[in-house]
Amino acid sequence: MTNILNFEGWTCPLPLRDQPNIILGHGGGGKLSAELVEHMFVPAFRNEALENLGDAAVFKVNGARLAMSTDSFVVRPLFFPGGNIGELAVNGTVNDLSMSGARPLYLSVGFILEEGLPLETLGRIVDSMAAAAKAAGVQLVTGDTKVVDKGHGDGIFINTSGIGLIPDGVNIGPHRAAPGDVVIVSGTIGDHGMAIMSVREGLEFDSPIESDTAALNGLVADMLAAYPDIHVLRDPTRGGVSSTLNEIARSSNVGIMLDETKIPVNQAVRSACELLGLDPLFVANEGKLLAIVPPSGAEAVLAAMKAHPHGQRAAIIGQVVAQHPGMLVARTGIGGTRVISMQIGEQLPRIC
Amino acid sequence: MTNILNFEGWTCPLPLRDQPNIILGHGGGGKLSAELVEHMFVPAFRNEALENLGDAAVFKVNGARLAMSTDSFVVRPLFFPGGNIGELAVNGTVNDLSMSGARPLYLSVGFILEEGLPLETLGRIVDSMAAAAKAAGVQLVTGDTKVVDKGHGDGIFINTSGIGLIPDGVNIGPHRAAPGDVVIVSGTIGDHGMAIMSVREGLEFDSPIESDTAALNGLVADMLAAYPDIHVLRDPTRGGVSSTLNEIARSSNVGIMLDETKIPVNQAVRSACELLGLDPLFVANEGKLLAIVPPSGAEAVLAAMKAHPHGQRAAIIGQVVAQHPGMLVARTGIGGTRVISMQIGEQLPRIC
Repeated sequence: MTNILNFEGWTCPLPLRDQPNIILGHGGGGKLSAELVEHMFVPAFRNEALENLGDAAVFKVNGARLAMSTDSFVVRPLFFPGGNIGELAVNGTVNDLSMSGARPLYLSVGFILEEGLPLETLGRIVDSMAAAAKAAGVQLVTGDTKVVDKGHGDGIFINTSGIGLIPDGVNIGPHRAAPGDVVIVSGTIGDHGMAIMSVREGLEFDSPIESDTAALNGLVADMLAAYPDIHVLRDPTRGGVSSTLNEIARSSNVGIMLDETKIPVNQAVRSACELLGLDPLFVANEGKLLAIVPPSGAEAVLAAMKAHPHGQRAAIIGQVVAQHPGMLVARTGIGGTRVISMQIGEQLPRIC
Repeated sequence: MTNILNFEGWTCPLPLRDQPNIILGHGGGGKLSAELVEHMFVPAFRNEALENLGDAAVFKVNGARLAMSTDSFVVRPLFFPGGNIGELAVNGTVNDLSMSGARPLYLSVGFILEEGLPLETLGRIVDSMAAAAKAAGVQLVTGDTKVVDKGHGDGIFINTSGIGLIPDGVNIGPHRAAPGDVVIVSGTIGDHGMAIMSVREGLEFDSPIESDTAALNGLVADMLAAYPDIHVLRDPTRGGVSSTLNEIARSSNVGIMLDETKIPVNQAVRSACELLGLDPLFVANEGKLLAIVPPSGAEAVLAAMKAHPHGQRAAIIGQVVAQHPGMLVARTGIGGTRVISMQIGEQLPRIC
């Protein structure tokens, strides 16, 4: 196929913080990531499904509303307290699909292996993917394996992509937050990021910090059964609660006001964050979700969440407001308010 | 989530040619790749769609027969005569879907970028993916970008996954080859692999060898319109024509007899292969397909192929036979026959 583009005089149209090269922050889920999507990928690939910018694309095939999502996993170390890259890869795509309200059905798996990876390591990861898929009730139906020469990869990278079916009557999207809506989190925040970080930094606590990696499709199904008109669902992974709520505020053109004292954080996570100078609101989660729900449905949704193993510590943490559209603001413990902006890059590289 | 597996006393159950570690050959599309799938992935992920081992998984959602496929691309160099990693990534997944008879609809894109990659390079690749998607009539609807630290990746790796819809009346699969069926190739073989290789080895020819990368969904649609009961379709990528036909012979438990003199090979490819001691039957293609068709449909399918821009040099190159089940045999130019076995590893690493 001859190339139909003319690269002569090609210039990069990106005002990407004046960086001519990719830096770690472009993968951090913050402003740099968003700019890459907004200024490079969306203009090039332009189509309706992509422009929604949800965790999953939604489209119709033969009358059925399907969701499709993809995620690559490059976490280091491969094994960490509470999980490993394999179950993270399965749960991550299951969750991205679930956040569109879809029932996840089928996943694909793409491995990029580095020459020299012990087969025993691959075997443990594969077994753990199989167990995670079984727990989530999804099937891994197709795959691909590439091997790169030693020194040109990093043990193992995993891509999972998946498709799911959105039930009738469900209409979830980042643009649907409305003033008056209630913001609910499904449990403690910051566990995954700090589990990874404490291993990397060699931190030890009385109670070790474990990743919260989990498949949330069961929780979402229970929430939708309790109240189908949930407006927004998102799992606050890279960039944490802060990036996720900032993105929703911008997509819906509303303000979001958090009550910081209501946000559940494990004591060990809080201590580790203080020690390392990090804010739990910016730390990644892999088994939590944020729900934005009309006030009439908030109690029903909260009760359904608390009754589910992955939502026992669910809490109402804030409200959608008409003021300061596009901004996330928090009422602090000492009675003031602070603006919580989106990070430019990331504080913790390669946590998923 | 606590880990539900017990790794104590874990032993690797793989008789993988006695290798305890991943070697390049595990990604080569030959016997080592097949063993990894057969002994590790299929037992772990066990399900019906996976066990078919086609290029795409096929399943039903709301009554519609869908195909899903995934592929990661790690080719070096990123830009080569006739294409680059971006259009290869789009065409590769479009073709894998097409080989199940599906009409490809939606693709996802996962980038793993290495810190330091020039944004200008990424921009060229992205533009070329957009052009390839447009040419193939598919939409890139969702994506993900991860960045790894310098020295832990290799510029850019791309995963594409996709879904397509299989029309009623189409039933294509690697197990459907039957004695008497005719083997058709859509054009010259070996172009992609030798284009990559000639760049790497610094070979120059009077007419440069160009990759054949192309989306084959249009060609497949024309073939199915001419004769819907095509038994098998496969694109001979990694491992080349030899691996593909060996796999089909094994899946269908039939023999395949090739007539070597009938196989179209460009002169420059033939010269390069001779120079490097390679056999074109083992070299990768990225814009060719093999079709196995009942004798009653062979002429109609061949005519439809020759009328399409991507099938002008299509040719009947062999036949399915009841003898030597599971084996690929070729009648050579000097009148003898030779067994063409599957490669163990790969002769050309990282060609896609």
